[in-house]
Amino acid sequence: MTIKSDDVKLIGGWQSAFVWRARVALNLKAVNFEFLEETIGQKSQLLLESNPVYKKIPVLIHGGKPIPESLIIVQYIDETWTSGPSILPSDPYDRAIARFWAHYFDDKLSPTIRPLSVAQGDEKKKLIKELGEGLVLVEDALKKISNGKDFFGGDQIGYLDIAFSSVLPWVRVIETLHEVKLVDEATTPSLVNWGEKYSKHDAVKDVLPEHEKLVGFAKFFIAKFVAPAASTSPH
Amino acid sequence: MTIKSDDVKLIGGWQSAFVWRARVALNLKAVNFEFLEETIGQKSQLLLESNPVYKKIPVLIHGGKPIPESLIIVQYIDETWTSGPSILPSDPYDRAIARFWAHYFDDKLSPTIRPLSVAQGDEKKKLIKELGEGLVLVEDALKKISNGKDFFGGDQIGYLDIAFSSVLPWVRVIETLHEVKLVDEATTPSLVNWGEKYSKHDAVKDVLPEHEKLVGFAKFFIAKFVAPAASTSPH
Repeated sequence: MTIKSDDVKLIGGWQSAFVWRARVALNLKAVNFEFLEETIGQKSQLLLESNPVYKKIPVLIHGGKPIPESLIIVQYIDETWTSGPSILPSDPYDRAIARFWAHYFDDKLSPTIRPLSVAQGDEKKKLIKELGEGLVLVEDALKKISNGKDFFGGDQIGYLDIAFSSVLPWVRVIETLHEVKLVDEATTPSLVNWGEKYSKHDAVKDVLPEHEKLVGFAKFFIAKFVAPAASTSPH
Repeated sequence: MTIKSDDVKLIGGWQSAFVWRARVALNLKAVNFEFLEETIGQKSQLLLESNPVYKKIPVLIHGGKPIPESLIIVQYIDETWTSGPSILPSDPYDRAIARFWAHYFDDKLSPTIRPLSVAQGDEKKKLIKELGEGLVLVEDALKKISNGKDFFGGDQIGYLDIAFSSVLPWVRVIETLHEVKLVDEATTPSLVNWGEKYSKHDAVKDVLPEHEKLVGFAKFFIAKFVAPAASTSPH
């Protein structure tokens, strides 16, 4: 089913890991949408009105109604455009497990990745250790859930693949910034394979930015917004 | 539909706000279950095996398969025992809004309530202000979502009512511990009404502990686990 483009809008930004989730889900369901890109470092009036509680991207606007929070958006897309491929598994237990790991990504992995981009010394070591241990747990989960296939969704990408969209590309940025290896053939071979296959998927390939572009953005963002704030901090 | 009690187990504790959610959802669906209470301050082998990632209650075990995380458990119960009353709304947009506010409770309100039980001075003032502002947002959301009826679910309790189970009784404990008013007729009349009606609901009344019992537990817990840790902290 293809919806008229003026029915579906997505407030986002090319660099936002959480926005990628919404875009991949819309692509998977072949939903046309208007992509409204926020200017980095600013918040549009539409964003402030559409997500007054968090004031964060992504926000999906469907028929004038705003839906914030990336995982909630992905579930909404799955439940609304039911004629496309299913995103969540059909079995309630499999759905619960998918929701559990998606929650883990947002609750444990993402909050480690963000401070890691600027962490130094012991703090950096501690966060890299935590992130590495978390990724090993995800490696084990992927092996179990995928039944040895490429994706969390088996042969097709699904909810957990879309949720993990927001993690691996930024882990690769952390690897480059700190010259470490977190996802490699020795410790997490299934995640390495996942990253290669997932980024080439038709619904994904125009969404995930090139690694070098993302590293460039991270350096620009740190220099412009993070480093000045740190140097004027009283601590 | 009533399931044999040995098919469904819930690892929990009478005092845990997140466990209340799972119990109310099971009661609403008339599911018989065995309630396995953890000893406070300890973790059973079954809990460690059933939720190795977080090691936290509640965990639902259905036919030997463990499901952690209270909101995931409630959704699982809704999707598994479909012949009982629906917990989530049927419309995808209403479901998204319900998921949004449930996320808000866990992301913003609960993390304020926990440190408030022991906060003092400026930190206490700051957290009380934050919590009060959050509860005003929830008051507005309740009015809008309930269409002026008693519950988030309208005339019946639903997902958001069950999610808010874990918030209001502990807000009442904070009010008693700090001699403040956070939910009252002047600022949040709909939440006051909600609290009165919700606690008397058949699926709820044997789940939520008496206020005085909960205050007693909070004082015991602070004295036994929080205060000693604070006094040996290097900060």
